Amino acid sequence: MSHSLFDSILQPSQILSGENLRDRYHHIWHTDKPLKAICVLLPTSTQEVSDIMKICHQQLSPVVVHGGLTNLVGSTETSGHEVVISTEKLNLIEEIDTSSRTMTVQSGVILETIHNAAGEKDLLFPLNFGARGSAQIGGVISTNAGGLRVLKYGMTRQLILGLEAVLADGTIISSMKKIIKDNSAYDLKQLFIGSEGTLGIITRAILKLEEAPKSRNAAYIGFNSYDKVVAFLKFMDSNLAGKLSGFELIWRNSYEQMTSTSDAVRPPLPYDYNYYVLIESLGSHTQNDHEEFQNLLEHALENELILDAVMAQSLSDVEWFFRIREDVNNLVDFMKHDQHFDISLPIPLIGDYIAERYKSLKEIDGVEQVYAFGHVADGNIHFMIGKSNLSLELKRTIDHCIYNGLKSIGGSVSAEHGIGTHKKDYLELCRSTEEIALMKSLKAAMDPKGLLNPGKVL
Amino acid sequence: MSHSLFDSILQPSQILSGENLRDRYHHIWHTDKPLKAICVLLPTSTQEVSDIMKICHQQLSPVVVHGGLTNLVGSTETSGHEVVISTEKLNLIEEIDTSSRTMTVQSGVILETIHNAAGEKDLLFPLNFGARGSAQIGGVISTNAGGLRVLKYGMTRQLILGLEAVLADGTIISSMKKIIKDNSAYDLKQLFIGSEGTLGIITRAILKLEEAPKSRNAAYIGFNSYDKVVAFLKFMDSNLAGKLSGFELIWRNSYEQMTSTSDAVRPPLPYDYNYYVLIESLGSHTQNDHEEFQNLLEHALENELILDAVMAQSLSDVEWFFRIREDVNNLVDFMKHDQHFDISLPIPLIGDYIAERYKSLKEIDGVEQVYAFGHVADGNIHFMIGKSNLSLELKRTIDHCIYNGLKSIGGSVSAEHGIGTHKKDYLELCRSTEEIALMKSLKAAMDPKGLLNPGKVL
Repeated sequence: MSHSLFDSILQPSQILSGENLRDRYHHIWHTDKPLKAICVLLPTSTQEVSDIMKICHQQLSPVVVHGGLTNLVGSTETSGHEVVISTEKLNLIEEIDTSSRTMTVQSGVILETIHNAAGEKDLLFPLNFGARGSAQIGGVISTNAGGLRVLKYGMTRQLILGLEAVLADGTIISSMKKIIKDNSAYDLKQLFIGSEGTLGIITRAILKLEEAPKSRNAAYIGFNSYDKVVAFLKFMDSNLAGKLSGFELIWRNSYEQMTSTSDAVRPPLPYDYNYYVLIESLGSHTQNDHEEFQNLLEHALENELILDAVMAQSLSDVEWFFRIREDVNNLVDFMKHDQHFDISLPIPLIGDYIAERYKSLKEIDGVEQVYAFGHVADGNIHFMIGKSNLSLELKRTIDHCIYNGLKSIGGSVSAEHGIGTHKKDYLELCRSTEEIALMKSLKAAMDPKGLLNPGKVL
Repeated sequence: MSHSLFDSILQPSQILSGENLRDRYHHIWHTDKPLKAICVLLPTSTQEVSDIMKICHQQLSPVVVHGGLTNLVGSTETSGHEVVISTEKLNLIEEIDTSSRTMTVQSGVILETIHNAAGEKDLLFPLNFGARGSAQIGGVISTNAGGLRVLKYGMTRQLILGLEAVLADGTIISSMKKIIKDNSAYDLKQLFIGSEGTLGIITRAILKLEEAPKSRNAAYIGFNSYDKVVAFLKFMDSNLAGKLSGFELIWRNSYEQMTSTSDAVRPPLPYDYNYYVLIESLGSHTQNDHEEFQNLLEHALENELILDAVMAQSLSDVEWFFRIREDVNNLVDFMKHDQHFDISLPIPLIGDYIAERYKSLKEIDGVEQVYAFGHVADGNIHFMIGKSNLSLELKRTIDHCIYNGLKSIGGSVSAEHGIGTHKKDYLELCRSTEEIALMKSLKAAMDPKGLLNPGKVL
């Protein structure tokens, strides 16, 4: 099809093609690889997205949506035959309602912009992860993003009250309500959350905001036994009564590497322990919460639940503590090639599962570095693996090493990143034949011509 | 079809028909109305439910699932031509995992049984409502039930980690995982949660448990202005940092009636105010939390945010406070006939909306009592209306009075009870033509022969 078909519904400045595609790319980490696409369209409203889809539907043209392009599983890849819809001009914050505690946004608004706008009203949009400065809320919702505060506030799915999406044939499904409870028949927004743009194109959303916390405490804790990590999680969660907001586990060698590249990430605790936990709580009383947090740590030390602890004494300490965990460049920069993972498994089994993978990975020829860390309270562990070459054989050997064993323990090959193209081959390791068949029948019912993000997920 | 078709897959004791249906009914409030059905089947496993559905699918026999029969919108009604599957023998608690903080159950386990089993392990399944002694978890999930603690813990949807369901053709969709995060393609369990048995039959679930709270505080507060109610909610929520678990609003005349029938529900506050709020917090420190709660109330009194407050001084006080709110019989018993509502609307608009309905309802001939109360922090208000007769005209006049106006403010005709048969006529007041069309295409894709709970929801 020709991009000129869109001339009747969009301004010339909203249609990029030919030479103008040179500066476009499909991923923020690959800005040197020019985008392959028929054109990039820049709609400014749900209606324009609908108009575009009506033309694509008639022309049987596949469509890929581009947001902040921070996706980690290839969900925004193109082959050259697709129309790309970029949400970058759908970037309005339409309303912040401080009484209902909601924010109404178009899908192209950047996550950090949402954080700042909520903060100005003493409110919080709690979803938070490293790519917040680039990720757009439409992509965040499409992938049901997780991040650092799922423990307290849930994943994206729990933070969306209203949603507007465009179906493959251009139909607008608008469920833009601020209400917290709505059991009036099927909750359609659940279909679009986490389906990576394969069932509809998200154009607007109503986000659930929280009252901004007034206190923030954090600490690094040292352990030698994984069982103690789990016991300490239970202890803190049961004593912090909903204030526990983060509980990140870092394996010793990952901690050593994360804290060795500059003074900005110097180690809060010495390299004496097998496991390091970064714990965070968010509360409403600066002084009381600090004392309570400190008392709990002292109690845990006295009872030998933990071996060592250092508590942040200032906001800059908190930032230092989180910088260590968040800046994965300190791991990746020293790798020749990298391969990363985002697995989910029952919390009690994590210690042994990861230990076995460390052992097996080291025996694979071509594997040079192995780092594990993650949102252990959510049962979600990331691996960053450095390797000597990009051969498919090595990639698959590493994949199998990490994924082998997940099925029998009820794990998942994707906790928060999604499936995209990168994990399609492994979907059946965590979903049954019947589940995948039902997914395909949903896809067929909602996008019978297979136009939306073709080749992704299923 | 004949019930003898099931002889090959079930024991005789699992098949009730003819005379044996005399003691069965379709709703716990109508035990005097014998059930109309081909038969009632009592499966004990997912496989038996699957076998039943294979036969029904082949015979084109419609199926209605019966759980605790506490549903308020007619979701369990039958016409006589259906096979009824009762989940009462699917009543096993299969496992409680204290480390993963999960409970694995069959769908016929009663909610209160789940509460007690969790409590024995110092854990909490937070979902709670008046019918907990009869409601089965399968029905709770099918209707995405809400209740008294949605504010802190969310609705049922947020408390389900794994789910197993049987499709119309007998296919078993098993997504029984304990993991908190799973973005491996579509989240199929969302389809079964809240769809009232029209897309599949829930047979098992993995429930997310919480650490049991150690402190519980509650108070009744008096207000004359609705705006102050909203301001006080914001004040308490921002100062209790996640501990606020309940915030129930009762209009003056409802409070007067609720507290006048016996000493067990004597009024905690005098009849001096326009609005009464029952507030609850759940925390981890008995003494600290009590002091903090009291200090916040004193601060609110001094700043004239609230007019009066009485705080529970013991657990029996807390129970007394909640008995007032929960025992709707104190309202219904004095009505000739009753009609109840469960609407959802943006929190800031509730005061005016309800005031206008009170006014209009009183002008309707045949309306004898009007009581409003509800989960105001969730934007969910219930009306209990007493009336002189059961005429369809009066019913519809009352319906229109309550619902008229919801659409323009983004409300819902059902916050937590569902649609069933009772609210089908009003679905379009809160869902668009496009939404309803998409729902119908989902239903057609998953249950093309229309066998599951026919005539309900859509």
